[in-house]
Amino acid sequence: MDPAKSYTIDELAQRVGAEIDGPRGLVVRGVNAIDVAEEDEITFIGSERHAACWERSRACAAVVSRGIEVPNHDRQRRALLTVEDADLALAVVLELFAPPVEPVEPGIAADAWVHPTAKIDSSATIMSRVGIGAHTTVGPRTVIEPQVQIGADCVIGSDCLIRAGVVIRDRCLIGDRVSIQPNAVIGSDGFGYRPDGRGGLVKMPHIGIVEIHDDVEIGACTTIDRAKFGRTVIGAHTKLDNLVQIGHNVRLGRGCVLAAQSGLAGTVVTGDFCQIGGQVGIADHRTLGHRVRIAASSGVMHDIPDDETVGGTPALKLRQTLRIQAALHRLPDLLKALGREGS
Amino acid sequence: MDPAKSYTIDELAQRVGAEIDGPRGLVVRGVNAIDVAEEDEITFIGSERHAACWERSRACAAVVSRGIEVPNHDRQRRALLTVEDADLALAVVLELFAPPVEPVEPGIAADAWVHPTAKIDSSATIMSRVGIGAHTTVGPRTVIEPQVQIGADCVIGSDCLIRAGVVIRDRCLIGDRVSIQPNAVIGSDGFGYRPDGRGGLVKMPHIGIVEIHDDVEIGACTTIDRAKFGRTVIGAHTKLDNLVQIGHNVRLGRGCVLAAQSGLAGTVVTGDFCQIGGQVGIADHRTLGHRVRIAASSGVMHDIPDDETVGGTPALKLRQTLRIQAALHRLPDLLKALGREGS
Amino acid sequence: MDPAKSYTIDELAQRVGAEIDGPRGLVVRGVNAIDVAEEDEITFIGSERHAACWERSRACAAVVSRGIEVPNHDRQRRALLTVEDADLALAVVLELFAPPVEPVEPGIAADAWVHPTAKIDSSATIMSRVGIGAHTTVGPRTVIEPQVQIGADCVIGSDCLIRAGVVIRDRCLIGDRVSIQPNAVIGSDGFGYRPDGRGGLVKMPHIGIVEIHDDVEIGACTTIDRAKFGRTVIGAHTKLDNLVQIGHNVRLGRGCVLAAQSGLAGTVVTGDFCQIGGQVGIADHRTLGHRVRIAASSGVMHDIPDDETVGGTPALKLRQTLRIQAALHRLPDLLKALGREGS
Repeated sequence: MDPAKSYTIDELAQRVGAEIDGPRGLVVRGVNAIDVAEEDEITFIGSERHAACWERSRACAAVVSRGIEVPNHDRQRRALLTVEDADLALAVVLELFAPPVEPVEPGIAADAWVHPTAKIDSSATIMSRVGIGAHTTVGPRTVIEPQVQIGADCVIGSDCLIRAGVVIRDRCLIGDRVSIQPNAVIGSDGFGYRPDGRGGLVKMPHIGIVEIHDDVEIGACTTIDRAKFGRTVIGAHTKLDNLVQIGHNVRLGRGCVLAAQSGLAGTVVTGDFCQIGGQVGIADHRTLGHRVRIAASSGVMHDIPDDETVGGTPALKLRQTLRIQAALHRLPDLLKALGREGS
Repeated sequence: MDPAKSYTIDELAQRVGAEIDGPRGLVVRGVNAIDVAEEDEITFIGSERHAACWERSRACAAVVSRGIEVPNHDRQRRALLTVEDADLALAVVLELFAPPVEPVEPGIAADAWVHPTAKIDSSATIMSRVGIGAHTTVGPRTVIEPQVQIGADCVIGSDCLIRAGVVIRDRCLIGDRVSIQPNAVIGSDGFGYRPDGRGGLVKMPHIGIVEIHDDVEIGACTTIDRAKFGRTVIGAHTKLDNLVQIGHNVRLGRGCVLAAQSGLAGTVVTGDFCQIGGQVGIADHRTLGHRVRIAASSGVMHDIPDDETVGGTPALKLRQTLRIQAALHRLPDLLKALGREGS
Repeated sequence: MDPAKSYTIDELAQRVGAEIDGPRGLVVRGVNAIDVAEEDEITFIGSERHAACWERSRACAAVVSRGIEVPNHDRQRRALLTVEDADLALAVVLELFAPPVEPVEPGIAADAWVHPTAKIDSSATIMSRVGIGAHTTVGPRTVIEPQVQIGADCVIGSDCLIRAGVVIRDRCLIGDRVSIQPNAVIGSDGFGYRPDGRGGLVKMPHIGIVEIHDDVEIGACTTIDRAKFGRTVIGAHTKLDNLVQIGHNVRLGRGCVLAAQSGLAGTVVTGDFCQIGGQVGIADHRTLGHRVRIAASSGVMHDIPDDETVGGTPALKLRQTLRIQAALHRLPDLLKALGREGS
């Protein structure tokens, strides 16, 4: 947070469209979690659990979603700011307190290594120790941080942010406004071998590419394999968390969200707006419909139709998995009652 | 794919040893999946599921495994190429359409950092911003891409391909024809601590190394820890996918295949030709025999004898796990029938 | 191991405080696992399983924990060294045989990129192709290996070891004696989005930081996200293995140990001395008490009180999970006996 930034309760309420219950003139200098906030910080109450912590919190103010009851509010001393959409209000407050970002100078650093045939837009920024291969193009206002390595024949769109240490291999296509966190890998070889008939394995050529559409975000150390042929596709607005594995020829739809450490084997295809929990695995060649939701830690072995929510390993309809899990709690006693424990 | 490359059906059939059912003169300019192929592309039919898509596919030709029935084939307009070994045929076709690879010039880039005592074969290629430590040797025709960092006293064999961003720490031994995908880490410290008696933890020294045998391939962001003492060993022809974790003192046999995000804790030992599915975990000090197969998403807590196939967490013989999973589907109704639901 | 180092049994026994059963004058030149040790190497017997291998081992000596019976010991030819604390003895022996470490020269490499406003202690070492941003400080005796990228306004303490390829983003705080293995990422954006009302997703600003306390160790390719606001905290003496994911606003206590590929979603809070097994996942906003232990491959969906040991997915008390797993083995036969198999 920027220590130089401060706002009165009144100013903050106006920015987020909140009703104030408490003093309007308090000065707020930061934002923090309810249990660690200091006396000049604002916090958030997004649940009953948070609300129960308000009395003991040191924060001078809190943004609270309409409908949440906050017990023992001392409105003489501290302020509650009630809003309709807490997520939106939080986003606004975070931007207000965001530290100033150093302006990035366009241009190519002296110690970057850019192939003479690469085309870098004059408004793009290529930082120190970046490598860019032959015939690759980088679009307007895109920022490529230090130590990124981009191969030949790539297309990087406009307004992208490629963080330090990212590797993008030959011929990959990256859309506009794509953000890639540090040390992610785009376009690694797919994992496919065939027996050589002499006890060894021969690598299948992977001559395809990776195509990442607009407004995609990719997490740190996430890996996206190039296609065996054709394209591995990440649809527009899709978001991948850290340490996610995307196999060769996967096609993710638009607006999907994949939590950390999830893994999609080769040729998985999904519809739009799917939500995939952390550490989920999906077997190769499976197809998911639109708006599929998969609970964290699940292993998906079958296709899933539109709008279904699944969980467990192997993944079933979530309702069915929860019913089985509840039944499991009673299984040992059932066996005992039937005289079978230890039998 | 190389837009300049094209072949007639006749030429392709000859290369893969196929029987042609359809026009022989069609010109093919690329290869793609059956549902996205364009009219000048060839595709593959490896299953009944694929065969059912042929009628609606735009592809002008398909390689098909003998024995698969393809309904509604319009042999006046399009061609089916029937082969015995579809995988082999696919490999051949992919190589035919592979984009031309820029020839790599042997030599050491001006901005590489190579220790004066390192010995780089004159036919090896050390690219921009690579670091190579004291006494390390790099063999004939090996290519080390930009931003690779190799420590001291390493031996890198011949014909290796070390992709951008890989880190190999001191004293590791890499065989011939080893391929390592971007941002993988070889020779990181093993994970071992002992209580210091004052509430803290003291790191165990890890003085051993990693030894990678010939023809091994290692995926992007995969990590292989050095041994506490002696060697962590990856046997010849073994293939590791992306984001795999290999703990200290693991010894993998020959020709094993480990899918993405699998993890082997310290001192796991395997035989040859094991197949380990995605996101599998194996507890420390466990021993696997030869040709063991482990289903994806499994957690292995016990030793596994030769030729066994296991699955589930904790992993049991796959047949047993499948039988339990089938039984689980009926458990809630059983409890209900016995009057125990909700009890 | 250093081939130049050798010790007699007598010397080794004295260093680790062992009783000798066998010849005292044998010369030991290395340390290795019991099944692969050569005739001039010492090994370790830490379990009955190891003890059973002693007869066939080629090692000339073994350190053995008091109380372990070693069958068929040939004390005329080989020596057993009995100790109270085998872990401590192993640590001592490993240090005795550790290869000599090249002394690291303090100073900033000519091809490092250090912002003029950064403050690097004169005893610190900044190696080749490192980048360090504005106003960042690096403490005494800290070593930063090649190709590390550190952002602006970071504080790196004293005696740290930052391995090759690590990325640390702006404003992160790293304590003293912190060790970070290659290609880890500290301070990547947290994973949080809100609907934009037009079918897209808007990224929540993540204006917080990562704060890593003293004596922490972080594994290769591990990712630690910065906080949405406030701090993601890794408590003193906590150890993270490879490929671990720490979400935004997680707060880990002191002396915790997280095995490889475990993942903590956003805002997980733990007490001190927790032990988290490999591939464990913990859902967001969950709270763990002190000294909680979680079995490998578990998925934690609920809060866990002090001193509890849990396992399974969803994680239950380990005793309960083991009882359910045992019951599951008998479930298929129970259904058969009740005439329900296949019904």
